[in-house]
Amino acid sequence: MTGTDTVTAFSAAETAAMEAALEAALRGPRGANPLVGAVVIDADGRQLVTGYHRGAGTPHAEADAISQAESAGLDLTGCTIVITLEPCDHRGRTGPCTQAIIAAGIKDVVYAVDDPHDPAAGGAATLRNADVKVRSGLGAVEAFELNRQWFLAVATRRPFVTLHIAQTLDSRIAAEDGTSQWISSPESLADNHALRGRIDAILVGTQTVLVDNPRLTARDPSGTTAGKQPLRAVMGLRGIPADAAIHGDDGHVLHLPTRDPREALSLLYAAGVRHVMVEGGSRILSSFLAARLVDELIVYLAPTLLGSGTPALNGLGITTLADAMQWDWDPSGGGAVQTLGRDLRLHLRPEPIQALEPQPARAAAEPAMGGY
Amino acid sequence: MTGTDTVTAFSAAETAAMEAALEAALRGPRGANPLVGAVVIDADGRQLVTGYHRGAGTPHAEADAISQAESAGLDLTGCTIVITLEPCDHRGRTGPCTQAIIAAGIKDVVYAVDDPHDPAAGGAATLRNADVKVRSGLGAVEAFELNRQWFLAVATRRPFVTLHIAQTLDSRIAAEDGTSQWISSPESLADNHALRGRIDAILVGTQTVLVDNPRLTARDPSGTTAGKQPLRAVMGLRGIPADAAIHGDDGHVLHLPTRDPREALSLLYAAGVRHVMVEGGSRILSSFLAARLVDELIVYLAPTLLGSGTPALNGLGITTLADAMQWDWDPSGGGAVQTLGRDLRLHLRPEPIQALEPQPARAAAEPAMGGY
Repeated sequence: MTGTDTVTAFSAAETAAMEAALEAALRGPRGANPLVGAVVIDADGRQLVTGYHRGAGTPHAEADAISQAESAGLDLTGCTIVITLEPCDHRGRTGPCTQAIIAAGIKDVVYAVDDPHDPAAGGAATLRNADVKVRSGLGAVEAFELNRQWFLAVATRRPFVTLHIAQTLDSRIAAEDGTSQWISSPESLADNHALRGRIDAILVGTQTVLVDNPRLTARDPSGTTAGKQPLRAVMGLRGIPADAAIHGDDGHVLHLPTRDPREALSLLYAAGVRHVMVEGGSRILSSFLAARLVDELIVYLAPTLLGSGTPALNGLGITTLADAMQWDWDPSGGGAVQTLGRDLRLHLRPEPIQALEPQPARAAAEPAMGGY
Repeated sequence: MTGTDTVTAFSAAETAAMEAALEAALRGPRGANPLVGAVVIDADGRQLVTGYHRGAGTPHAEADAISQAESAGLDLTGCTIVITLEPCDHRGRTGPCTQAIIAAGIKDVVYAVDDPHDPAAGGAATLRNADVKVRSGLGAVEAFELNRQWFLAVATRRPFVTLHIAQTLDSRIAAEDGTSQWISSPESLADNHALRGRIDAILVGTQTVLVDNPRLTARDPSGTTAGKQPLRAVMGLRGIPADAAIHGDDGHVLHLPTRDPREALSLLYAAGVRHVMVEGGSRILSSFLAARLVDELIVYLAPTLLGSGTPALNGLGITTLADAMQWDWDPSGGGAVQTLGRDLRLHLRPEPIQALEPQPARAAAEPAMGGY
């Protein structure tokens, strides 16, 4: 939030619209782009259309709302648009939202938080130059919270990191003899492949390449390679065999000669990657978690037990329960808990770092429940 | 199913009532008693009342349905009752259902499967002697499946076994330094204490007594010891310290000097235990699972990661993924997946033994998804 515009009053209708926009934003998937929702209200405060962003490469929330209005034959002239994030002013894979707003005749823009990419010359300035009234700060805390991991990734100039674990109930990712195909249900595998089609890069360790020899391509359920393929990145100091399946036909492979997850992310960022999915194995998963470099955790949980074999994680440097890594259930992009065939798909994001503000001791049982 | 009565035709209304009874049965909790549902229909086939059994010590499904009708002022004379299990003829903690049915004037009884406890002189014979028409076999496969683990426990003269694991997402039940209080949310702890109040015995290993020194009493959220307390059983060859908290005030403690889960269950059965909850630690949990002696699995899954520490299980004798122990989600008694504070409560039961009938290879991905 910048400037004096933020010191302003918002109407009850605008506040209600922001709540609706925040809720709509949650329908979108996490990734290179933030979750954004937008609601257009008329002069009487009625909510006319609600839009949200469905992920990188699809229309922004404002464009989604405005195009819905066009399809419905609604005239938005003189209306107010309420958005969870400052409208963009650049032409990326989609047109600038500022132009869509101006073209629709919208005269009033209320947004929650600034787009961190270009705070000095962002969409707000362009809109004001076009005689659109712009106010910000409404729902700012909630809107920042909605995308806190994305803001962190942008601020630290690294890709947004999704980590994916396919495990048994007892958190094994392979049996004693190394077999792991397939712990997950076909529906979980298909979900994972659909996710591969939405990210910029997929990352595994050299160990995984040497042991499992994966292709790491995004394929649809018929086995057809999807149109958009993520960069296939391999992290580690060992070389990749010349005949490894990961080379594929397109040479769209990057070897990251490091064991440091932070360095790996720097290299990926330099290569243009804004959303990476870390797939394994245990050592890579653990190193990203231990470095607190995971923004989104997806666990495919199969209703099976192995009792032994390869644990999903092999050490996070945590020795006592009070230091356990805490996660929040993430309802965005389809829900915190979904059923995929016989598996559960669990969706989580890290709890905010507690040091930022004092919090009551968490997960402490009522004193009465002490002792078991 | 016995005798010629089973070769009979059932009306569409009776079939629909059995489906409703099977569905109602799922609302009850698993344990010493089977899940049972009952639906009373009138001469026109209308479903008047639906009852189900809420667990040991509460009215049976038939009694539940009939008392509902009484409360509603409904006359059941000449009606048909459709039940998922043969009505009981013994006075346990509740009166015999046969007498309740006769007293209500019900003239027609349809049930799915025989009560295995006393097939020769069960409720069906008593009802026929009272001029009630009795037929069985409708929905028999589904009714047996509904309670297959309970039928197995009864047939092998052992308690019904509930196994409970309180773990992190990475299946740790304690951190490296042994701290484990509390991995679970207060709501999960309360749920576990409520379960303790419904079982006959709670079982831990001597290791757990020596390390954690638990009380193992059922307590309500205020810390008050509940009225009904389970027998506290400790399994293992080591002695129990004289000052261990498990002795409590009531001496309601049993030491089972064995490491063999089958032998432990025999001793508990001889002591009158029909429902035991196995609480831990890893060795005890693993030994019951490896012996395929678990009828119900409850996992309290906290959204936390430890990365190291005590795994929930320490070996089941499984070396390859094809031999992984498979579980079914169990929707009974509140659902397969519930939210308890920040935890998930997962409820499962073992898959039927596959050897009984040939099955297609399970969890095999579509060929097109082969390779990852």
